[in-house]
Amino acid sequence: MKKGIFITLEGIDACGKSTQIELLKKTYPEFVYVREPGGTILGEKIRNLILKDKDITMCGKAELMLFMASRVELYEKVIKPHLEKGDIVIADRYYDSTLAYQGSARGVMEMDDILSLNRQMLEGLKPDLTIYLKISPKLAQCRRDADEADKMEMEGLSFQEKVAQGYDYIASKEPERFLVLDAREPIDVVHKNIAKAILKLQCRQKDNLEKLNAGNSENN
Amino acid sequence: MKKGIFITLEGIDACGKSTQIELLKKTYPEFVYVREPGGTILGEKIRNLILKDKDITMCGKAELMLFMASRVELYEKVIKPHLEKGDIVIADRYYDSTLAYQGSARGVMEMDDILSLNRQMLEGLKPDLTIYLKISPKLAQCRRDADEADKMEMEGLSFQEKVAQGYDYIASKEPERFLVLDAREPIDVVHKNIAKAILKLQCRQKDNLEKLNAGNSENN
Repeated sequence: MKKGIFITLEGIDACGKSTQIELLKKTYPEFVYVREPGGTILGEKIRNLILKDKDITMCGKAELMLFMASRVELYEKVIKPHLEKGDIVIADRYYDSTLAYQGSARGVMEMDDILSLNRQMLEGLKPDLTIYLKISPKLAQCRRDADEADKMEMEGLSFQEKVAQGYDYIASKEPERFLVLDAREPIDVVHKNIAKAILKLQCRQKDNLEKLNAGNSENN
Repeated sequence: MKKGIFITLEGIDACGKSTQIELLKKTYPEFVYVREPGGTILGEKIRNLILKDKDITMCGKAELMLFMASRVELYEKVIKPHLEKGDIVIADRYYDSTLAYQGSARGVMEMDDILSLNRQMLEGLKPDLTIYLKISPKLAQCRRDADEADKMEMEGLSFQEKVAQGYDYIASKEPERFLVLDAREPIDVVHKNIAKAILKLQCRQKDNLEKLNAGNSENN
């Protein structure tokens, strides 16, 4: 049974996700942090194949399957056991990235089919909250350091625009799960908004656990 | 349009597949030979992760996704272009392996779901002929050289038995696609049976191409 809280951060490249994750790590060192692709021995090898190794090209479908392999390994080995223990898990990217990048931008597979594959692989687990750091692809491009760009970041503006459209679409379909934040705001303002949303979830979790315990004592 | 012929070889570990592939290469050096996982730059890296690298463990679903990544890359980069050119492509394992190993033996996903994922990824292409070298898992175990076993071969007898049951089931569902050969027969007898089946397919291909050309001349 899932007792913990699962929060994902999403957005196009250079939306400020990494900066926010670093701030979260300082504010909440007790949380569990994972990133995609990666986070396991297998996942980090896959990360290298997809993002770093510039001698390797691959078709969009192979890329999609590699992301899935990394994700399901991360889910089984890290996310699921921590959520069962009651921890708060923060993921830098999760399946919404696949919907936006491989679905919307690359058109590898229909978004509904990607979603149903993810549900099969991940036992239907959805994030409790997904924070979407929204920024215009043009502004994001200016922020990026071209020298350190990985393969995905080198795809160019029209690609990032399709990714952004994908995120906008998914966020509009699930407004209760998504918190859309304006990523042009100052870093500490964005951080405070994220912290506020986390606090709300923590209170809800406390309430739920208390109800559960009360129910258990009544039954005993 | 597919003008070539696509033939796959399947069977549990140590069924004699590699020996038969070597004989085919000598008899038909003009054919295109591929193996799974592998056959592309990405695929060989994946092969190493799944079968060779003994420091890496992975859950069954991640393994399934890695096989899919290798297969779709092989399909897009090698199998599809060669079939379009009219070549004969021989594959050492293809999606029936995933049905038998990850579906039947590991129970990672329902066989029907695995099949439908493969259809989506591989544009619905089925092999024209699948040669299933059938052997009892016990006999296969005696044949194997334990020192050179890869990770899949080290799974033990009860695993191989479930793989064999998977193959028997798939072969029974598609008798027109499967040629089931008794792998206990002498090597050259098995080879002759395979060669006979290939000749039949080549004649059918010739007929089809002639009909197609006749049709084209009539239309002109």
